[in-house]
Order: sequence, then structure tokens, then C-alpha cells
Amino acid sequence: MIDPLKSPLLTDLYQLTMLNGYLYADMRQRAVFEFFVRTLPETRPFLVACGLETCLSFLEDLRFSEEELDYLKKTRRFSDNLIEELKTLRFTGDVYALPEGTIFFADEPIIRIEAPIGEAQLVETRLINLIQYQTLIATKAARCMLAANGRATLTDFGVRRAHGAEAGLLAARASYIAGFIGTSTVLAEALYGIPIFGTMAHSFVEAHDTEEEAFIDFCLANPNNTTLLIDTYDTMEGAKKAVHVARQMAEKGIRVQRVRLDSGDILELSKNVRRLLDQEGFPDIQIFVSGSMDEFSIHKLLDAGAPIDGFGIGTRLDTSDDAPYLECAYKLTEYGGIPRMKKSAGKVSYPGKKQVFRSYDKNGQMKGDILTVENDLLEGTPLIEQVMAAGKRLLPAKTLQEIASHTRRQLEALPFGLRTLTATPSAYPVGISPALERLKNETESMLRERK
Amino acid sequence: MIDPLKSPLLTDLYQLTMLNGYLYADMRQRAVFEFFVRTLPETRPFLVACGLETCLSFLEDLRFSEEELDYLKKTRRFSDNLIEELKTLRFTGDVYALPEGTIFFADEPIIRIEAPIGEAQLVETRLINLIQYQTLIATKAARCMLAANGRATLTDFGVRRAHGAEAGLLAARASYIAGFIGTSTVLAEALYGIPIFGTMAHSFVEAHDTEEEAFIDFCLANPNNTTLLIDTYDTMEGAKKAVHVARQMAEKGIRVQRVRLDSGDILELSKNVRRLLDQEGFPDIQIFVSGSMDEFSIHKLLDAGAPIDGFGIGTRLDTSDDAPYLECAYKLTEYGGIPRMKKSAGKVSYPGKKQVFRSYDKNGQMKGDILTVENDLLEGTPLIEQVMAAGKRLLPAKTLQEIASHTRRQLEALPFGLRTLTATPSAYPVGISPALERLKNETESMLRERK
Repeated sequence: MIDPLKSPLLTDLYQLTMLNGYLYADMRQRAVFEFFVRTLPETRPFLVACGLETCLSFLEDLRFSEEELDYLKKTRRFSDNLIEELKTLRFTGDVYALPEGTIFFADEPIIRIEAPIGEAQLVETRLINLIQYQTLIATKAARCMLAANGRATLTDFGVRRAHGAEAGLLAARASYIAGFIGTSTVLAEALYGIPIFGTMAHSFVEAHDTEEEAFIDFCLANPNNTTLLIDTYDTMEGAKKAVHVARQMAEKGIRVQRVRLDSGDILELSKNVRRLLDQEGFPDIQIFVSGSMDEFSIHKLLDAGAPIDGFGIGTRLDTSDDAPYLECAYKLTEYGGIPRMKKSAGKVSYPGKKQVFRSYDKNGQMKGDILTVENDLLEGTPLIEQVMAAGKRLLPAKTLQEIASHTRRQLEALPFGLRTLTATPSAYPVGISPALERLKNETESMLRERK
Repeated sequence: MIDPLKSPLLTDLYQLTMLNGYLYADMRQRAVFEFFVRTLPETRPFLVACGLETCLSFLEDLRFSEEELDYLKKTRRFSDNLIEELKTLRFTGDVYALPEGTIFFADEPIIRIEAPIGEAQLVETRLINLIQYQTLIATKAARCMLAANGRATLTDFGVRRAHGAEAGLLAARASYIAGFIGTSTVLAEALYGIPIFGTMAHSFVEAHDTEEEAFIDFCLANPNNTTLLIDTYDTMEGAKKAVHVARQMAEKGIRVQRVRLDSGDILELSKNVRRLLDQEGFPDIQIFVSGSMDEFSIHKLLDAGAPIDGFGIGTRLDTSDDAPYLECAYKLTEYGGIPRMKKSAGKVSYPGKKQVFRSYDKNGQMKGDILTVENDLLEGTPLIEQVMAAGKRLLPAKTLQEIASHTRRQLEALPFGLRTLTATPSAYPVGISPALERLKNETESMLRERK
């Protein structure tokens, strides 16, 4: 059985034909690849690095199974030598990275792979596939957290509209890292230990003869998980029935915890429902809202005084709808000790191994970054650290809670200019050090000479 | 080991708490759920149904493993009765659907599930997760096919920017169904038998001392797969080197098949490269283009006369960037033989089991659809057919080639008004039959009486 989530065949064909080429030419020296974002989307004034631990697991587990080797052999596309090499191929390289949850900007490497060129090349596709998506989601979730600003809790509700099963799982992971209290995706608890939350669907109400019966059945069957969906027919009528049921349940020692609104004028309805619940003696029943929510609607509703305790954020989060991809690249920056770069129109990048230094003001707010060469020593805090040596993690995998704490501290240090939903990427200064500019010029000269 | 791609735990928590509720209330009657799109995205004048066979496989294989049951037990969220039921739960329902590759519009059911309510409810999350994404991709790929209009071949290059591993695989499947010749994703060949294609990356060129050496090594190592990437340093210089290498290789009996352009002014460069290749005696070397391609750039380039033989379509396809999700819903339309509907603001839907009749003009072009109740008999061709009875497929799974043929015929019948890239969803008439309007009114009356 081939496991699609672990298979080294989840790669582009050209990775394998290039390996064929490197082997043919006996090119086995160490290569350095860096993964970075070229330009930030207009609606992402900063990005939150996410996906590192899943990449490290992938690298540690990398191997070709018998079945995968058989398939490759049968295609007759590759030399016997290559198949032979792949049999014992493991990832033996070093990895440097921004810790997961770190805020970063264009041109700053998220991860650097230093390994024999075949290994470093082969893993490109899956590393991008894992990091790009989780970074998209962690970043959008972080913007939702900034919009909520502690006034409401946020939960991921997006698995159904996520692009496939793994996207749903990774969205739960990435949004939890960004500060969400959990997800609706059951498998995310089973596999990652992420807290799960759920309510009820309209179908549950519709399948019952009356809304009230549906509420009662649900509470009695799930006495510790009693969120009632009240908008199936008429929200205010539903709220009255929820109150009625809450009274009946109180007599049985069951507490109705929440009501959920999923349609209509949420601002108006949430205020009216809150007023009703308070008047009827249920100030503890919380109001939970879902339905096309994102950072913009969270901000708008809460700033307008909507008495909402929690949001379920689904489709727009899990698809990162306003920025569904990043302009990113995994670039060879050194081979055999010599810096490399391409010069394709509009796609020039910096050669060599890099480091990022970040400065803070006296209040601990981020002030500016400098991108430089690896061993440069500049003011500020270096962000990139080694996480793997010779194919092994240097430290045990971080827990999601540890990563979430780091992310929270990162977001606390975010300058005001990047916190607003209308901020643009130009709001934060990222400079290039003289040493890096020099390396770039030298590499360009070298390339000119080669012609 | 839990397999995330098959696990019934890839679901929302509320599905399981609702099952708890149905069981508590002893509600075991048959439910009918239909999955449909509420409104089409502005940039999708039609949709191509995709994902059915993957859903049917999921339904046939549905079962809870020991490990999954243990997890559920440990959470202490569910009654012992529920855990006991889940042990032997299989999908025993009937399924009706649009054949994969069928063109459809808002409100038309893609799939209908008729099963005991617990089964039909449980599978909601994964069915949406599988169908929404594949439909998005098949539709965008179909628009790319219309833009190319037989003038160039198209290949999926998007796995790296797809949202996770499964998205990459499903994008390869959906775009192949829509008419692409294949994908770069190796695993899609290993698992689905989809033809794979590949070129070389800039890193391969950069790792070599000279571009020419890179081309030579690549051709000698992969004599049957010789696409040379010529834009790493300077495209026209790269083209000259490709010609030079093509001459050397010809002497060894190796044919350079293609050159790839990935940056710069593609229209201008493709013309100049074509002219050079022709002048130098290589009219057979094809020009392949990649880099932020989509239906709009394909159309623009080919209409401007760019001599491009093939496109690699990546990021924008696999993320469906201009419409990364569908406004869709899986709605209870009947329970215990009684039609059901919700009345939430702005989200009213039609009750009961439905059929769609499609009319064609004398040239075989689609003329209009009517949405009606299941057993109505109207003019035109009924689109929805039964595909599963009592949990078993009625016919063997269709091959991807069969589905692709059906899609091709569907696209041939697409009226001119829907073929252009600027067409909007309003361009095609979908009517509601009197019988369906009547059922809706009756159901609304019934709901009013219940109050």
C-alpha cells in the first residue's frame, strides 16, 4: 500500500528525471536550497511560518517502499542505477528554518535544506506543498485572531470546503497554532490532539417534527455539548424555543451552553437574541456565529458591538479565499560551495545561505528586518536556526501548544501598522545587507564570465 | 493506523453528536440529502460535476476501525449505544447522481443520498470535501480547454501549490477528466494511471557550470524525455544553446523534443524562439510554456498567435484561484417520506427528490434545463441516474478515460454563450417546474401549520 501522505512519489516527474541526470553526471555534491516568498499577497501584510514540524517528519520518514520502487522500475523511465540508489535513499541533510509561528516577510527564507543535491531536489515538491498551505492558513487565522482581539473565541469549521482531506487536517493544525481554540474536524483530535467543537446542523432540526423536539433530543443525547442552532425557520422564534428548552433542561441538571446563528442580519439578530436570553434569565448562554465568516466580518461585527462569544470560521479560512496561494519558490542558492542564482526576467533571487536579523523598539514591537548572508553579525535577533543535522531532528518535535505560544508572542510584537486589516505588505521595512548585495554582485559577475 | 483519506473520522464533530441524538430518539428512518451549488461564482458560467467515483469508493469502504472506535470511546463524548452501532456501520443507502463530467448549474443536485438518516448524515463532510474541490478543478480545467480550443495541449503542473497532498492528486484526476493530457504528479500515475510529464528545473541548470552542460547531461540521462528549460539566464541565448545541443544529440540518435519558457514576455519570446528553431532546422522541437498560466493567459497568448504547443498549468488551476470555493450545500430534502426544507434567511432550498431535464437545439447544443421532482416526465433528457443501490455500485467504476470522453461530449454541447471566458452564470436558463414549485409551497404550508 502506497500512503499518499508519506510517499516520495508525491513529487513532480522532473525531480526524478533530474535525479537521473545528476546521477548520470555523477553530481553528488551538497546543494543549498532555500524556500521563500517572492511577494506577499496584497491582503497579507505579514506571514506566519507554518508547517516545519510536518516537513521534518516527512524528511525523517523519507524512503521508497518496495511497491514504489516496482512502479518506478516498470515505467522504464529511469536508469537501473537510479532505482538502485533510491532503494537506500534517506534524507541525510541539515535543515535550518524559522521556528513555526514566526512572522516573516518577502525574500526571507522559511526553510533551508543543505544536502546532497539529489536529496535536496527530490523533496522540493512536498516541502512546498506542506509549507505553502499551512503558512496561508496560519496567516489568515492570525488575522482573524487580530480582528477578534480577545473579544471572542475562534474555531475552525472548514474541513468540508477544504481542498481534500489533508487540507482539512492541516487547516485545523495551522489555525490552532495561530490561536484558535480548536476545530470541528474529529480526525484532528484523533491524530493531533487538537480540541474539537461541534454544534448541530439544520438537517437535525428539519428531520424532527418540531424545532423544540430537536433541541430536547439533542440536549438529552449530548448533555455536555449543547449548542442549539436556532435559525432553521426563524431565528427569534428559535431563540424563544431555546429558552423554553433551557428551562426544561435546567430541571434535569443539563445546561444549554450556546445558541448558534448561521444566517440573516447577524449584528441585529445577535443583539436581539442576547437581549432575550438575558431577560429570560440566561445570561450564561453564549452566542456562537457561523456562515461565511472571516477576519473582515469578525472585525465588523465585534466593532459594531455584536454580543458574539464565538465564531466558527470555515470556507474562507480553509481555502484562504482572498489569497489562495503564495508567490513562493524553492531555489538553489549554492552548489559545491559556490553560490548560485538565476536571472530569469522578474525572478532574480539572492544567492548563498542567508540569515535574517530582526530589530525591536523599546516596547518590544518589531521595527525592521535585515536579510543577510549566513555568518554575518548584525544588530538584532537572528531568526533562522538549525533544526536538523544529518537527517535527524536536533530537538524533539515541538508540541502544538508550544508552537501556539510562540505564535502568540510573535503576534504581540507585531507593530500597529501591520495589525489592521487594511495594512499592506509595504508597511514593514526589510533591508538587504551590504554583504548580501556584495555576494549577489559577485555571483552575477561570475555568471557573466561563464558566458 | 488511521488512514486520513479513508477515515470516517474525517468529519465534523456535529455529525457524530447528531448521530448520538438520532439514536437517542430512535430516529432510523430513511433520509434524502441532496448536494447542490447555490450560486455559481461570477467566473464560472457552468460547472463540471467531478468526484463521484471517489465518493462511491469512500461509501463502499466506509467502516470504523478498532483504533477509530477506541479513540471515540476514550473521548467519553458518545453513548455506548452509538459506539456499538458504529462498530458494524456500513453505508447501505442508494445514490443518484449526475455522471462525472456532466455540465450543471445552480440548484441542480450533483448527488443524492437516500439512506437511514445516521448514515446519510455521517458522510456529509467527506462527500462535500471530495466533490466541491474536484468540481472546482474540473471546471477550471474545462475553461482552460475551451481557451486552448485544440491549439495546444495542457498539463497539470500544480501539485506543489495545491492545498496538501490529496488536493494535488485530485487536481491531476479532475484536470485529466476535463481533457488535460496529464500531470507532473508522479503519484497520479502510480495510483490512477494518469500520464505524467516533466521537464527540468532552473536548479538543474544552475547546479551545472554551464547551461549547455546541463542540457547535455539531461538529454543523455533521459533520452526519451528531453525538454530543455531555456530561461534560466537569458531565453534567446538559452534557445541557441538548445539548438547547439540538439545538433550534438541528433548525432547520437537522441531527439530534443521541447524547449520550455517560464518567464518574460512569453508572446514575444515564443515567436522569436520558434523562428530560431525553424531557421536552424528544428521545426519539430516544440515550445512548452509555464508560469502563472490559466485560461485567460492561454486564450490571450494563442489568440495573439503565440506558437505554443503545450502549457503547464499549475498554481492557478490547483487552487482554482479566482473561485477557490463553491457556495454549496448538502441539504436534507426528505425524512420518513416527508419533504423537508429550511427557511433560513437567504438560504431557502427546494424540498424532495429532484430530477433535471435538459433540452438541446437541432445542432445538439444545450438550450435550457428544468429542475423538477423525481418522477416528473418532461421534455428533454433526464440527467440524474441511480449509481448505487443498498451500498453497492450498480456498475463497475468508470475509467478516467470513459469519464474524460463524456466530459468532452458535454463540452461540445456547450452553447456559444457559455464558451467565452467572459460569460457569466446568467447566460444559461434553468427553470423550475410547476410540480416542484407546488411541492415547495405545500412544504412551506406544512411548516407554517407546525408552528
